[in-house]
Amino acid sequence: MNRAMVLYFTGRIIKVEAALLMLPFVVALGYKEKTAVFFLIAAALALSLGWALSRKKPADQAIYAKEGFAVVALAWVAFSAIGALPFYLSGCIPSYLDSLFETVSGFTTTGSSILASVEELPYGMLFWRSFTHWVGGMGVLVFAMAVMPLSDRRSMHMMRAEVPGPIVGKLVPKMRDTAKILYSIYFGLSLIMFVLLILGGMPIFDSAIHVFGTAGTGGFSCKNSSVGFYDSAYIDWVITIFMALFGVNFNLYYFLLLRNFKAAFKNEELLWYVGIMTSASIMIALDIMPEFGSFFTSLRYSAFQVSTIMTTTGFATTDFNLWPAFSKNILILLMFIGASAGSTGGGLKVSRLLIIAKATRNEIRKMLHPRMVSSVSMDEKPLSPETVNSAYMYLAMYVFIAAVSVAIITLDGFDFETSFTAMAACFNNIGPGLGAVGPTSNFGAMSHLSKIVLIADMLLGRLEIFPLLFGISFPVLKKQRRSANN
Amino acid sequence: MNRAMVLYFTGRIIKVEAALLMLPFVVALGYKEKTAVFFLIAAALALSLGWALSRKKPADQAIYAKEGFAVVALAWVAFSAIGALPFYLSGCIPSYLDSLFETVSGFTTTGSSILASVEELPYGMLFWRSFTHWVGGMGVLVFAMAVMPLSDRRSMHMMRAEVPGPIVGKLVPKMRDTAKILYSIYFGLSLIMFVLLILGGMPIFDSAIHVFGTAGTGGFSCKNSSVGFYDSAYIDWVITIFMALFGVNFNLYYFLLLRNFKAAFKNEELLWYVGIMTSASIMIALDIMPEFGSFFTSLRYSAFQVSTIMTTTGFATTDFNLWPAFSKNILILLMFIGASAGSTGGGLKVSRLLIIAKATRNEIRKMLHPRMVSSVSMDEKPLSPETVNSAYMYLAMYVFIAAVSVAIITLDGFDFETSFTAMAACFNNIGPGLGAVGPTSNFGAMSHLSKIVLIADMLLGRLEIFPLLFGISFPVLKKQRRSANN
Repeated sequence: MNRAMVLYFTGRIIKVEAALLMLPFVVALGYKEKTAVFFLIAAALALSLGWALSRKKPADQAIYAKEGFAVVALAWVAFSAIGALPFYLSGCIPSYLDSLFETVSGFTTTGSSILASVEELPYGMLFWRSFTHWVGGMGVLVFAMAVMPLSDRRSMHMMRAEVPGPIVGKLVPKMRDTAKILYSIYFGLSLIMFVLLILGGMPIFDSAIHVFGTAGTGGFSCKNSSVGFYDSAYIDWVITIFMALFGVNFNLYYFLLLRNFKAAFKNEELLWYVGIMTSASIMIALDIMPEFGSFFTSLRYSAFQVSTIMTTTGFATTDFNLWPAFSKNILILLMFIGASAGSTGGGLKVSRLLIIAKATRNEIRKMLHPRMVSSVSMDEKPLSPETVNSAYMYLAMYVFIAAVSVAIITLDGFDFETSFTAMAACFNNIGPGLGAVGPTSNFGAMSHLSKIVLIADMLLGRLEIFPLLFGISFPVLKKQRRSANN
Repeated sequence: MNRAMVLYFTGRIIKVEAALLMLPFVVALGYKEKTAVFFLIAAALALSLGWALSRKKPADQAIYAKEGFAVVALAWVAFSAIGALPFYLSGCIPSYLDSLFETVSGFTTTGSSILASVEELPYGMLFWRSFTHWVGGMGVLVFAMAVMPLSDRRSMHMMRAEVPGPIVGKLVPKMRDTAKILYSIYFGLSLIMFVLLILGGMPIFDSAIHVFGTAGTGGFSCKNSSVGFYDSAYIDWVITIFMALFGVNFNLYYFLLLRNFKAAFKNEELLWYVGIMTSASIMIALDIMPEFGSFFTSLRYSAFQVSTIMTTTGFATTDFNLWPAFSKNILILLMFIGASAGSTGGGLKVSRLLIIAKATRNEIRKMLHPRMVSSVSMDEKPLSPETVNSAYMYLAMYVFIAAVSVAIITLDGFDFETSFTAMAACFNNIGPGLGAVGPTSNFGAMSHLSKIVLIADMLLGRLEIFPLLFGISFPVLKKQRRSANN
């Protein structure tokens, strides 16, 4: 492992956070809040740490998969640790662990909160809290790549480590251009949504907050009752549709821009994503009709809830904790399916599940017809055995981490539904769970140990396990490498 | 698919059930019960159905993997359907669906019951209910193989389909001899346990019932309060230890008989199995000490519970539903780990999880060191990619079936803990779950739909998914084969 280069790079990326912190600083100044100064302090710290790490450019500038993973892991941990400072130093969140939980929840676009009342936060803090969603959604490093000059091979290794999903595609030959295109689409969609919310009568500040939460599929709101506060069918539908849009693979939007409609609309993952979403919305709408009277009112609430859970956003318009068990269970299932690869959403991802389903069907066929030659393909292209294997392996590690997390969380003595969905909500980057961590509640009552486990789960979920695993096993890796070289 | 041969074979195996039904008939006669006649009726039915199916020996006698799966699936379904008749016809269980649930629960060695009070059943019925455990534990077909003359290749295909675990080993060159050796060990261990229970003061009838439940890792008792009824530390420990013994791969006992101690005690699965059991027992004992006072009393209850859950037996000595959440959660985790391959226990199996863990570790290493050549091995032998793939695939299908089952069961409106553990208890062939299906409760309150799903889960769990899947897709397969041949 080229440690010097990993630290050098992490340092450069940390400096980007100093720039990002200027935005909430300006907002806080605009609202004449004294807490503005804490954004400056955090920025100064980011700048000096970043400077210290990236002072000297190492002689050996090689970056491979290993280094890419390590940079991503370190950068995300550093971003969270520094990003938590304004909350903690200002006293808005008295405990540093809670501040870290809130910030990790922000960057990983989870949206789980330890705050009982968000409406008491200053505007600057609310803005920063939600802005982390927007930055984390498309990726801290993808952002850095779009603004920093980087060689192509280096970028690829980091992009692969940060963009979710089983397959990462380059859109254009140059990685940096790909990052720019992705961020342009992201920015464009966010802007359209911002305008639509303002047209619906939402205040400008609130609109920005909800655009951040929707675009990053995060879910932090500036209201205690989340989107339910506005009680508007128009706003509900705008957010429902945009959550769904941000849960789509961004490559498809690029195909649309190129007028390659066939590649966009014949995408297998998209078909399944839309199909699952539609059928779940209808099933739940029928199940909750007694509560809302008409089918269309039920559909408004069910579609919102399905969209918010499946894209792993986590906004709420109603307390789905009170819904019938069937509807609640469909929502729990959707938590694990998650959004599309290459989107800002979390979860296992529709395409990964598709790959596993197809590979499994193929294996069964082979068992029955040993002489049959067949392969697994997606979007009419064959999948390599490595892709299939890594999807299986991902599922195995995912199940393992989920089981261990729940085991530790249950130490707190909550009921099984609470413990299980707390893990599911954080690991899949959704936000609220059910039971004591339901949409009208928060994670504040959890123990320190559970919060640490859930922070790890949020990061593991957002970065899809491997980068963090390798980042953490830094010293171990060195040893392994040595013995592998001998 | 050679359908004629599948039906012929299934017919021959069904005739074996007629013979098995003579045992409860004799017991019922001994207790002068009028319900004895219903065993005769069921036996007559089994005999005629078996005779009708196996009347003519087909010209083409080829049996391959496909046919093996189909025979196993059909035989298990037929055994259950016929075995349910005495309960239903005698009126002991008024609904046929409930009778089927109870019988499937018996043969699959699950031990989940729909009966509120077992003590009201006649002796003959109690005997038959528990005897199905003993037969199902080592396998309906393995038993048939031990008593019927069969060609070796044919037996292998069926044995592979019925004996649980990722790898099936022949003990001796001849399959039939292997089946005989397995049944001799099974019978020997059962006999030793029977004597030990009688020495402990348990009545002879009760001892037989609890030997059947322990040996098959089933869990049906003849007392409403299960093993807790006897309130004896000696009996608790005898059953604890024998449950653990029956959860060990039977091949290891054969190695012991051959005095090959190294192969027996250096077995990786055994080490993990014993390690997990011991550490779980100690952790839970510490957690429940406030309830029982001394560590050793706690250990008696925790070791019994760990042994009963991990081996998927399902006896109870205390209401673990009232234990702290941490202990309950360890038990839920153990439900999924399960016993060893080649034992009478259910669950995912320790060795399958070991294979997945090793393969995953290996894949991660390959990601970090692409040029490193490494392979996965167990017990110092390399594992084939097919074995690894099928373990991954099994996990994927397992998770999928579990998710769908829970989704359907929640329609009944029980809490999440109940719905989730009802599936876990049946799919892993354990018996009691938690919540409304806890050890002091039963499955009687579930809806028809849920019972059907759970019956399917029990069979899928016992036969490890594939045989049943292929058996069910009988007509579909024929079509596929045709198109594959074109």
